[in-house]
Amino acid sequence: MTRLTPDEIDRSEALFAPLAQSLRELVDVTIRSEADDADVRRAHALIEQATELLGSRLAPEPFSMRATTDGRTLTWGNVLIGKRNAIAPPLLVERDADGRATADLTLGAPYEGPSGQVHGGVCALILDHVLSATAHRRDAPAFTGTLTLRYVAPTPLGPVRAEAWTDREERGKTFAVGRLLDADGVVTVQAEGVFIRPRAKS
Amino acid sequence: MTRLTPDEIDRSEALFAPLAQSLRELVDVTIRSEADDADVRRAHALIEQATELLGSRLAPEPFSMRATTDGRTLTWGNVLIGKRNAIAPPLLVERDADGRATADLTLGAPYEGPSGQVHGGVCALILDHVLSATAHRRDAPAFTGTLTLRYVAPTPLGPVRAEAWTDREERGKTFAVGRLLDADGVVTVQAEGVFIRPRAKS
Repeated sequence: MTRLTPDEIDRSEALFAPLAQSLRELVDVTIRSEADDADVRRAHALIEQATELLGSRLAPEPFSMRATTDGRTLTWGNVLIGKRNAIAPPLLVERDADGRATADLTLGAPYEGPSGQVHGGVCALILDHVLSATAHRRDAPAFTGTLTLRYVAPTPLGPVRAEAWTDREERGKTFAVGRLLDADGVVTVQAEGVFIRPRAKS
Repeated sequence: MTRLTPDEIDRSEALFAPLAQSLRELVDVTIRSEADDADVRRAHALIEQATELLGSRLAPEPFSMRATTDGRTLTWGNVLIGKRNAIAPPLLVERDADGRATADLTLGAPYEGPSGQVHGGVCALILDHVLSATAHRRDAPAFTGTLTLRYVAPTPLGPVRAEAWTDREERGKTFAVGRLLDADGVVTVQAEGVFIRPRAKS
C-alpha cells in the first residue's frame, strides 16, 4: 500500500480537492445541459482527455484507501465525505461536546429521486453516516448493524440538515437516533440505528 | 417545463448517455490518480472547459425532471438510474412475471465506505430503490414509508446483486422484502420496507 507523508497529503489535497469540486459542477450541468450537439461532442472529448491525463498513473491497489506514514488512513475516496470523490457532496460532520453529530449540506439535481425531491435512498445514505458518527471512536470505527428509516414528509432538493445523537450504549453497541430536516426546519425523515465497534485485538 | 418529443429524447440520450459514462470513468480516476502535478492541472482546466460548454445553455427549471410530449417524465437525472447522472452506476432494475425485482451492478472505488467495502448507505440507497420497484405501478409511483436494513456481512466492492419481492399488499401499501448479495452469492444486507401509493385523484 502506498504510504504518504503529511506533506504529500497536503500537496495532493490542494491539487485534487478543487478538481473534484469542479467535477461536481460538471456532473450537475451534464444533467441539466441543453447545449448544442457540437458543444456536447466537444465537452465529451475534453472529458476523455482529462481521464487520460489523470489515468496516466493510477494507485496500484484496486481501490481508494491510502495509508499515511503516521498510520492513519485517508478517506479521499469515501462516497459521502471524500474530498476527491465527486459523488460526495462532500459531507462535513460536526460533533459537539455532548457527542451530538450535525451535518449541513445542499443537495442539487444529482441527488434527485422523485421530481424536485431528494431520493429516499440518499436520505438513508446521509443518515447512516451521521448516525454512525455518534458511535465512532478514534481508531475504533463503528459498523452499521441495523438502520430503520421512517419517511414522514418529502425532502425538497436544496439545503438540508442531518442530526444524530446517542440514545444509549451497551457492550460495544451504540443505539443512535437522528433525523433529516429541510430548509424550513421541517423533519422529513426519522432514523434509528445500532452501530457496532468490533472488539479491539488484545 | 420543457416538453420533448420522442425523437428529441432519443437524440439527446444518444449524445448524453455516452458522455455520462465517460464522466463516471473520470470520477473514478480522480479518486485513484497519482498523475504528475502538471497533468492534474491540465485535467482540471479541461474539466472547467467542458463545464462551460455544457453550461452554455441550461434547462430553465431548477432541477432535472423533464416532461415528454406524450405526458411521461424522464428520469435522466435520477441519482441511481439516471442515464445523464454520473453518480448513478446506473442501476437497471429487471422485473419478472411474478413482480420480483432484480438488479445486477458493479460498484467500484466511488462507492467506498470502509476500506475495500461498499458504504452501508449505498447499500441502503440501492435496496430502497429495488424494493420500491416492486410497488411501482404505471403512472402510480410508490413512495417509501419505512425502510429497515440489517447488515449481516461486509459488502466488498465489485459485482453485487439486489433482489426484492412483495410480501403482501394492504390498501395501497406494499410490504416488500429484499437483500443484497456479493459476487459469491453471500447475503450481506437484508431489507424490508413499506411503500405507499398515493390515492389517484378522482
